[in-house]
Amino acid sequence: MSQATNQSWGGRFSEPTDAFVARFTASVNFDQRLAPQDIQGSIAHATMLARVGVLTDDERDAIINGLNEIQGEIERGEFNWSVPLEDVHMNIEARLTEKIGITGKKLHTGRSRNDQVATDIRLFMRDEIDVIEVELKRLREGMIELADREAETIMPGFTHLQTAQPVTFGHHILAWQEMLARDHERLLDCRKRVNIMPLGAAALAGTTYPIDRHVTAELLGFDRPTENSLDAVSDRDFAIEFTSFASILLMHLSRMSEELVLWTSAQFNFIDLPDRFCTGSSIMPQKKNPDVPELVRGKTGRVYGHLMSLLTLMKSQPLAYNKDNQEDKEPLFDAVDTVRDCLKAFADMVPAIEPKKASMYEAARRGFSTATDLADYLVRKGVAFRDAHEIVGQSVAYGLKSEKDLSEMSLEELQQFSATIEQDVFEVLTLEGSVAARNHIGGTAPNQVRAAAQRAREALAALKAGA
Amino acid sequence: MSQATNQSWGGRFSEPTDAFVARFTASVNFDQRLAPQDIQGSIAHATMLARVGVLTDDERDAIINGLNEIQGEIERGEFNWSVPLEDVHMNIEARLTEKIGITGKKLHTGRSRNDQVATDIRLFMRDEIDVIEVELKRLREGMIELADREAETIMPGFTHLQTAQPVTFGHHILAWQEMLARDHERLLDCRKRVNIMPLGAAALAGTTYPIDRHVTAELLGFDRPTENSLDAVSDRDFAIEFTSFASILLMHLSRMSEELVLWTSAQFNFIDLPDRFCTGSSIMPQKKNPDVPELVRGKTGRVYGHLMSLLTLMKSQPLAYNKDNQEDKEPLFDAVDTVRDCLKAFADMVPAIEPKKASMYEAARRGFSTATDLADYLVRKGVAFRDAHEIVGQSVAYGLKSEKDLSEMSLEELQQFSATIEQDVFEVLTLEGSVAARNHIGGTAPNQVRAAAQRAREALAALKAGA
Amino acid sequence: MSQATNQSWGGRFSEPTDAFVARFTASVNFDQRLAPQDIQGSIAHATMLARVGVLTDDERDAIINGLNEIQGEIERGEFNWSVPLEDVHMNIEARLTEKIGITGKKLHTGRSRNDQVATDIRLFMRDEIDVIEVELKRLREGMIELADREAETIMPGFTHLQTAQPVTFGHHILAWQEMLARDHERLLDCRKRVNIMPLGAAALAGTTYPIDRHVTAELLGFDRPTENSLDAVSDRDFAIEFTSFASILLMHLSRMSEELVLWTSAQFNFIDLPDRFCTGSSIMPQKKNPDVPELVRGKTGRVYGHLMSLLTLMKSQPLAYNKDNQEDKEPLFDAVDTVRDCLKAFADMVPAIEPKKASMYEAARRGFSTATDLADYLVRKGVAFRDAHEIVGQSVAYGLKSEKDLSEMSLEELQQFSATIEQDVFEVLTLEGSVAARNHIGGTAPNQVRAAAQRAREALAALKAGA
Amino acid sequence: MSQATNQSWGGRFSEPTDAFVARFTASVNFDQRLAPQDIQGSIAHATMLARVGVLTDDERDAIINGLNEIQGEIERGEFNWSVPLEDVHMNIEARLTEKIGITGKKLHTGRSRNDQVATDIRLFMRDEIDVIEVELKRLREGMIELADREAETIMPGFTHLQTAQPVTFGHHILAWQEMLARDHERLLDCRKRVNIMPLGAAALAGTTYPIDRHVTAELLGFDRPTENSLDAVSDRDFAIEFTSFASILLMHLSRMSEELVLWTSAQFNFIDLPDRFCTGSSIMPQKKNPDVPELVRGKTGRVYGHLMSLLTLMKSQPLAYNKDNQEDKEPLFDAVDTVRDCLKAFADMVPAIEPKKASMYEAARRGFSTATDLADYLVRKGVAFRDAHEIVGQSVAYGLKSEKDLSEMSLEELQQFSATIEQDVFEVLTLEGSVAARNHIGGTAPNQVRAAAQRAREALAALKAGA
Repeated sequence: MSQATNQSWGGRFSEPTDAFVARFTASVNFDQRLAPQDIQGSIAHATMLARVGVLTDDERDAIINGLNEIQGEIERGEFNWSVPLEDVHMNIEARLTEKIGITGKKLHTGRSRNDQVATDIRLFMRDEIDVIEVELKRLREGMIELADREAETIMPGFTHLQTAQPVTFGHHILAWQEMLARDHERLLDCRKRVNIMPLGAAALAGTTYPIDRHVTAELLGFDRPTENSLDAVSDRDFAIEFTSFASILLMHLSRMSEELVLWTSAQFNFIDLPDRFCTGSSIMPQKKNPDVPELVRGKTGRVYGHLMSLLTLMKSQPLAYNKDNQEDKEPLFDAVDTVRDCLKAFADMVPAIEPKKASMYEAARRGFSTATDLADYLVRKGVAFRDAHEIVGQSVAYGLKSEKDLSEMSLEELQQFSATIEQDVFEVLTLEGSVAARNHIGGTAPNQVRAAAQRAREALAALKAGA
Repeated sequence: MSQATNQSWGGRFSEPTDAFVARFTASVNFDQRLAPQDIQGSIAHATMLARVGVLTDDERDAIINGLNEIQGEIERGEFNWSVPLEDVHMNIEARLTEKIGITGKKLHTGRSRNDQVATDIRLFMRDEIDVIEVELKRLREGMIELADREAETIMPGFTHLQTAQPVTFGHHILAWQEMLARDHERLLDCRKRVNIMPLGAAALAGTTYPIDRHVTAELLGFDRPTENSLDAVSDRDFAIEFTSFASILLMHLSRMSEELVLWTSAQFNFIDLPDRFCTGSSIMPQKKNPDVPELVRGKTGRVYGHLMSLLTLMKSQPLAYNKDNQEDKEPLFDAVDTVRDCLKAFADMVPAIEPKKASMYEAARRGFSTATDLADYLVRKGVAFRDAHEIVGQSVAYGLKSEKDLSEMSLEELQQFSATIEQDVFEVLTLEGSVAARNHIGGTAPNQVRAAAQRAREALAALKAGA
Repeated sequence: MSQATNQSWGGRFSEPTDAFVARFTASVNFDQRLAPQDIQGSIAHATMLARVGVLTDDERDAIINGLNEIQGEIERGEFNWSVPLEDVHMNIEARLTEKIGITGKKLHTGRSRNDQVATDIRLFMRDEIDVIEVELKRLREGMIELADREAETIMPGFTHLQTAQPVTFGHHILAWQEMLARDHERLLDCRKRVNIMPLGAAALAGTTYPIDRHVTAELLGFDRPTENSLDAVSDRDFAIEFTSFASILLMHLSRMSEELVLWTSAQFNFIDLPDRFCTGSSIMPQKKNPDVPELVRGKTGRVYGHLMSLLTLMKSQPLAYNKDNQEDKEPLFDAVDTVRDCLKAFADMVPAIEPKKASMYEAARRGFSTATDLADYLVRKGVAFRDAHEIVGQSVAYGLKSEKDLSEMSLEELQQFSATIEQDVFEVLTLEGSVAARNHIGGTAPNQVRAAAQRAREALAALKAGA
Repeated sequence: MSQATNQSWGGRFSEPTDAFVARFTASVNFDQRLAPQDIQGSIAHATMLARVGVLTDDERDAIINGLNEIQGEIERGEFNWSVPLEDVHMNIEARLTEKIGITGKKLHTGRSRNDQVATDIRLFMRDEIDVIEVELKRLREGMIELADREAETIMPGFTHLQTAQPVTFGHHILAWQEMLARDHERLLDCRKRVNIMPLGAAALAGTTYPIDRHVTAELLGFDRPTENSLDAVSDRDFAIEFTSFASILLMHLSRMSEELVLWTSAQFNFIDLPDRFCTGSSIMPQKKNPDVPELVRGKTGRVYGHLMSLLTLMKSQPLAYNKDNQEDKEPLFDAVDTVRDCLKAFADMVPAIEPKKASMYEAARRGFSTATDLADYLVRKGVAFRDAHEIVGQSVAYGLKSEKDLSEMSLEELQQFSATIEQDVFEVLTLEGSVAARNHIGGTAPNQVRAAAQRAREALAALKAGA
């Protein structure tokens, strides 16, 4: 049997595929990762075909037994993947026919590689989303507990990386957690649109066999069959939507990473990361580098790139399936792996963050971080906000020249700028007073942080129950 | 009053802003678009401040009346926007104080420009999403009706842009509609995450005033206040998620546009677009160019670019607000306008597509489009699918050489390739027989297309009721 | 005269353009920016047409005079731009015909809007590249002078944002300058490919008139006419190459901006930026925000987005001109403006950076920054590098526990880790000794920094002369 | 020996790296591809160290012999890559020390992994650019020869995918060649900036050893050493510039692919691609799919994605080296492979394109493609161009209604629209007359196409000689 007829489409062709072209167009080197889903889908398809009478029960059993054996061969690394057979689908079908004879060829009845691969990849994505969700929950839980522990730990809050107002470390960590809560929602929204079954769309138009797509969908745990065969074989929205979720998630992790890198610098010195999450230098013996956050920050580019890759891939493609779509797998696989590994690394690392409380407190004390509190104090005494702002601005300018924080000035010095200032001003100029005063939902007051941690814990638990 | 103290933050500064820097950093030229939302937010904020006793009722009324007058000035084009006042917020506040005196300065109590702009832009996005949804529904309705009308119109279905199997034009249009149905879901999912209120987060940590964020949220129609102040002022997920929705939508429109451009070419000649959607050439008098789909296809790049712009913007930003974020508005505004206009153009154009049925039918008749039907026929006669595929492949090779379609061969010619072929084969080789035989959910059979159109109609109506 | 015949392509059309479509497809709102280049190109085209005898000298003169008048009207803001006339080309041609009668219509002989717009945009890009180059040179010069002044100013060098080895501030600034030197080369490489003339390609195939493209190219200062008409009207490489240059440049500016933001933070406290490059806060009176670097960092996203937009635009476009290409202008215009303004802001700001030398020096002194020098010392005494690394690693671990820098340990303490260490070790542990010892091309030794600044100065001057 | 001390940076660390972190941060799985360059660089480094007296000649020889043996082990697949040793550099150094003892540790004197990897990757890129250039030249040559052969083959030229004017197939192919000529220039411009040597920058500041960077640069064939050590270890411009070149190239290939896919469709039917470049369908036996151009078109997304990935990676990174940069390799490697394979596939395929001349000619004959010629005819008879355009527009409208091409109308029919039309009009309405008349540089006249092919051939040969 020639190579050409070895392939699934040979009859019409007068010369074999060019050797380089065969390698260039083959996908088996990466799509073999879909083997478990391919077999799972084939078993369900065979079961349905028997139920509607296209296969006999014996044929179905032979197919299923053969596929289960092949699954074992793959798991044990004994399966011989062949590039001339192009892809995971033809490799498995050829092996099945080798094992069980002509019945193996009947498995492809009523389907095409177009709907088969679309089904495989959706099964794969559903599995991977569920794995990713476990890590995402673990990370959120770690953040909530860290935040609760550090609900009273004072640090400077920044805008423009300039000291702005004191906040608590717990409050800051809960800001991270909020980002992930939205990512979690987006992941579950994406899963809804992943879990629809294309199988039965066949090449593009459906099939003439009396298939029952509801049966197959139920066997595979899909919510429903797709509504339109042309769309079913060409839709890759779910891949783009997943990489879009992944891009926003990595964006969030890049922001957290940036802060971790800043905080472990000698200049900030806000936290310690255990040695096991760091590496050193081959030339500078003193170095302890925050490799994990740096690498995660770097991986942001990778995931953004995959998103752009998939969007470009689908731009302007006419219906239905085109060979271009073979290019959907590698970016998607890499996005899945990157998301899972980065979440795992963070879920391990975040609970091990050691805040250096004295250093954080001292940084908050410097830098006029209670200037807004002084302005608010003046407003409560009847000064219009914009005027209070001006008064405090002049006090700060004085402080910069005289190298004194607001809390270090005497009452007389403060009164230079407004006669309204009285002895009670010093209560509002403490860091503890400042954070405690921001006492409303979303504010940094320690009791608000604890309440927010509790609400987050409950929301996450509810999600767990519901998922 | 100097320029420096004209600004909201002058007291601490010893020299005025460089003139070029003032222009370079000002946002009023584009953020004035947020004026209606800024005023709406300020009215709600003032109402809440009065309710909790920070403002008197008279102060509140003076502020609200002043803001309403300013709204009128803006609408009538009488408002004098000032670049030295930086942004929409300071422009409106300065005008308010000009009108009602020192009470105007009290409006900023308990808020900051950081939470103010975050609120404005969410109000804006909510409004625009609702406008976009109207056009999206109109387009989907137009597609469903076109599909229903053309449920029996036969055209070639393509894979790899090669004739594959006959489908109906209605089925093809419903494939488009399915893409938009998913986009519609994504838009509504995005809206959920837009409609949360940042106001009250103040600069980054909350405020010391006794604000009631639930009151403000209710007044503004938000679902709830945000949970964390640091996150509230720095979160731009909703903007990225919207441009991600927009990118997938434009990707879909680019695919439809590509097909419209192909179909109006002399080579395909499948449809006519009315002259009012086309333009001509300044040099070639015979040209009638499908400008609308071409331009929409081109605008895909614009929206992909905005998505990449916003993802890049947020990468690695430490908390909380940084000036970088000022760059969020222009891409978002342009994405909103592009999506709305492209949907409007399509919603007007799609119902006016005129299929050239004879031309489509003839194209489907050529190109061996019923080859799969012949293979299925053989399988039903007991031939294994892969063998049937080989037999038909040889028949096609013969047809290519002898320039005959399968339906044009004699029974003897067909029997060269398989003795199993009998007189009844000619029934399955008709286009009508081919499409009618794909008679399952998602298949191209005319009755399936009509049923799918009806389901789509109901799903869309249900969405309308529920939204 | 109906609206349809107002347009340049009406004869073939049976109904006027839909009003929304006319607005949607018109480009005059943004392409009017090309008016000076459009007129410049038309004058050269008319001159050439007269030279080859297609126009009389009187016709040429009437056209040129009319165009010059129109140029004046545009400059004075008196020109009435019309959306129904679609674009800058038809607006100017219609006005010319209004002014000089039927001769105005002869200007379009032997050209099309396709080659006309391609010519306009290349003339525009050439002009803008030259403006950008002026700012780029100014910035490079400012950096070289700053570096020269600060060739001996010691600061910590970082890898992984951890203190690594001492460097000089001048050396650091020259690293920035090197980035810009490469950008400068890329800009000039891009200019070579911009300065080629498409005019004469007409719609797509050339023209039947006896045009002389070499004449027109010479009149317009182009290096040569393009080689292929189909390519000439559809090539947008130069736009992508420019935005690619711009993306790398903004990437560099984002890195410098990141460092400026870090350095102005209270935690680093390495430099001061004059107040005129900063802004304040509407709520926090003490804030002085490094707005210029933050905004430039944010604008990185904008330019990356434009690159992606143009790449997407051109993907899969069949030859020759398609309406999609109208979308090339806005991203390109905005990229040009962004690059020019960011370079100007930096060129103004960089020379005004005030290093806080004591603070930098102190930061370098902490953090074991001379650990590598100790390792090198040991190697010079005969210890293998990897063993020396291990010895110093243990010394650092001891220093962390005992809170002593290497230079603060006694000889006995140091000798715990290696008996090879002697009294002369303290010479290599000074910051001055450390930087001076890196005395080779590219190294941070002050004399190397001064020599590098001199070479950079000469390279830039040579470039000036040669350009 | 513990795992920690196995690593190159262990002394300062109190606990070993977390197992998952070790795997997550290791790069050896992909950077082992740089082994040949790593060894090449090490040999040059050792040679230089001996020349300046840091190594003895015996040490140098031991190192070089050891490295050569390791090179052999790697080539024979006998090298045991170790993930705990992190990267290609430490793997090779550890093996060297295993082989030659303590002298192996001296190789790292005066360098760091930071400058080492920067050197390796530039050597790698230089090699790969040279391989890519060979394929690019081969493809350009194939196009030039095809164009020359088909200089008289008439096909329709399109704008907006509507028939515009007749062109020759050779002219069309030369448009492709022009795109590649610019890409070729960009590749060589990029190579200039690749071929600079970072070695000697050490970790970030240079080294205290008396290295001679000019010697190493010469040994490695670099044009010169880099000017600044901080820049040298952190610059990844060359990677971005290469992926930018690659993106523009793939954009061009996507345009050619789009046309090949169109042309092989039944609707266009302009060319045949030999079977060896196509594949078939597992379900539709008649299909012959243009897989190679489709796949190349799809790979455009991949390369655009890598560009975006690298731009994102570098955004906002402070100097000097950060761990993020480890992420530069995979996108770069994949971009290199994709470019090389796509060029190879095209260089094999393009010369085998078989134009279907009769089909192309017939398509050009239809669709009023000589309408512009009629307009030009009228202008030569004294009609103003815009009026001629209107006359021809009306003729076309009449032709559409009466289903006649312009050349099929009688003189009387044509004279309905202008009395100026005479019997000689029929000469200009032939396709041959139309193409021959566009007889100027860049025009589609067959003699111009042949002359352009000859110029392209000479330019390419000159480039070969010069490179």
